[in-house]
Amino acid sequence: MSTSIRIAIDVMGGDRGPRCIIPAALRSLSLYPSLHITLVGAADVVEPLLADADFDRLSFRPAREQILADDPPASVLRGKRDASMRIALELVRDGQVDGCLSAGNTGALMVLARAVLGTLEGIRRPAIMAALPVSGRLCHVLDLGANVDCPADQLVEFAIMGAAAAAELSGGSAPRVGLLNIGSETHKGNRQVREAAALLQACPALNYVGPIEGDGLFRGEADVVVCDGFVGNVLLKASEGVAGYLQAELRSAVAGSWLLRWLAPLVLHATRRTRERHDPARYNGASLLGLRGVVMKSHGAADEGAILAAIGHTVRACEARLPERIAGRIRECRSTL
Amino acid sequence: MSTSIRIAIDVMGGDRGPRCIIPAALRSLSLYPSLHITLVGAADVVEPLLADADFDRLSFRPAREQILADDPPASVLRGKRDASMRIALELVRDGQVDGCLSAGNTGALMVLARAVLGTLEGIRRPAIMAALPVSGRLCHVLDLGANVDCPADQLVEFAIMGAAAAAELSGGSAPRVGLLNIGSETHKGNRQVREAAALLQACPALNYVGPIEGDGLFRGEADVVVCDGFVGNVLLKASEGVAGYLQAELRSAVAGSWLLRWLAPLVLHATRRTRERHDPARYNGASLLGLRGVVMKSHGAADEGAILAAIGHTVRACEARLPERIAGRIRECRSTL
Repeated sequence: MSTSIRIAIDVMGGDRGPRCIIPAALRSLSLYPSLHITLVGAADVVEPLLADADFDRLSFRPAREQILADDPPASVLRGKRDASMRIALELVRDGQVDGCLSAGNTGALMVLARAVLGTLEGIRRPAIMAALPVSGRLCHVLDLGANVDCPADQLVEFAIMGAAAAAELSGGSAPRVGLLNIGSETHKGNRQVREAAALLQACPALNYVGPIEGDGLFRGEADVVVCDGFVGNVLLKASEGVAGYLQAELRSAVAGSWLLRWLAPLVLHATRRTRERHDPARYNGASLLGLRGVVMKSHGAADEGAILAAIGHTVRACEARLPERIAGRIRECRSTL
Repeated sequence: MSTSIRIAIDVMGGDRGPRCIIPAALRSLSLYPSLHITLVGAADVVEPLLADADFDRLSFRPAREQILADDPPASVLRGKRDASMRIALELVRDGQVDGCLSAGNTGALMVLARAVLGTLEGIRRPAIMAALPVSGRLCHVLDLGANVDCPADQLVEFAIMGAAAAAELSGGSAPRVGLLNIGSETHKGNRQVREAAALLQACPALNYVGPIEGDGLFRGEADVVVCDGFVGNVLLKASEGVAGYLQAELRSAVAGSWLLRWLAPLVLHATRRTRERHDPARYNGASLLGLRGVVMKSHGAADEGAILAAIGHTVRACEARLPERIAGRIRECRSTL
């Protein structure tokens, strides 16, 4: 990190709240020497937790209100003008920080981010993107739930944003872009997907590799996979569900066998690197793309290590000046479409 | 199996064809003493493979044509009147067998089954259903790819068919029916799903348990999960993809560690039952529901064991008289909706 990066963190969101997020923020200041953090939250909760902190790169911005997990997204626009989530976004808008992170209500963050920051030129609605570990690399998948019905040209916007983000965050100048579908034949899929496939094929600025099926994604067949937010959300949660289910089955097999109970420490030791590489905490942090600023969403259930990972992703998105890169890529693609 | 069950098997479909399907059929005759099988396929291929078979419960029906994996579904309706897949379906229609099984082109099977057998009263289009192993039980998921765009009342048809099938195949009189969604709040999901949720809530003949997310499905939160065929197909393939990916990662961890290579035989022995319980071959066989007859689809890549499992599922669906049960459940639900 050459120049200083400033980020705001909404400490009031997530299942574990400030007691988890603030220690993670303090650890990140040690990890990233040029990072400046503004914590945003309730003074009576945050200040006691900062009593022993002596970082000069840490500041605090009090907020009198808080967005709750069950606040309907539409209602947060009118009320709660002094909510920590909104203030963090306003710090981005006003240029006081380069980006922000929240573990709060996803729908509310999406609505507020769009209202406070606005979308980039040529982008109608932001999308949520996360990176999944597949076959030794990362696959960037979007949208993961912000947009449940997507016409073809919106899927193309996702492809352009995802390609820009993958190039900046994972390296490589021409990330392979795939469209999630249920078969490789051109008649497969719904109307939106078939139309989007035709548009993507006609865009020379993208390295479009064609349809990707649910299993092909996990075989690493693309660096970016585009889908509507309903499908993407189901895909993401089902993948987490399968992984969690198989883990639970293995644990119960271990519990039920004296041999496995005896071998477990050896096996755990020998598989440590593989398990670390797939620790969900490492991949915590979904980008809200298409906004005039960096906005990162942490999983609500994130623990301290997972929040630390999400702070790292926020720092990298700020360093890469992701919104500017996306805006540039959109201009490039529009001129060739 | 008390009374005799007669099924037709299209031996020409699938990646491995008759050399895999015929041995599986012969094994199934030993397993199910009241089973009668009619093999349908090319005489020059099938007859040599039957040279040593002396079952009196086995018959052969020659077919001069074959549906290929890349035949467009629409084209199989007009041409190939003598294809093995079509003949197997005609044997069901004419009452010569109780049900049929094919490992061939899914789209073609769907189109031909609908044309040859017709749908049950009150069902517009058939759906594809499979059972996934989750938390010690089975979860029946539909649709898995036959219908990419589904209005709300079609999702309700899936729920009724899935509930009837789950009750017959897995036991239990009131299977819990869930609707796949991306959150539990009523504003979540697309229009079709929100409308379907309202219709399902108003149907006392179904044990509707509400929205199920991708991870909840694998926690066993429902016995039947309903979704459109695009989402279902992505869910199924992504689940297979994650499981396959994790297996490959474990294999590579074993290959890279002398300790794990040394422990592998012990671990494989101790996890045998868990691994058998999750062997994909066991769950091979997807039902085409909503037709006037039992039609089962095997995975194209199925090996002999997987075909054997699919024959078992076909036998059980015939024993349960699944089409009649579904028709009855539809009448019951229509009268209360």
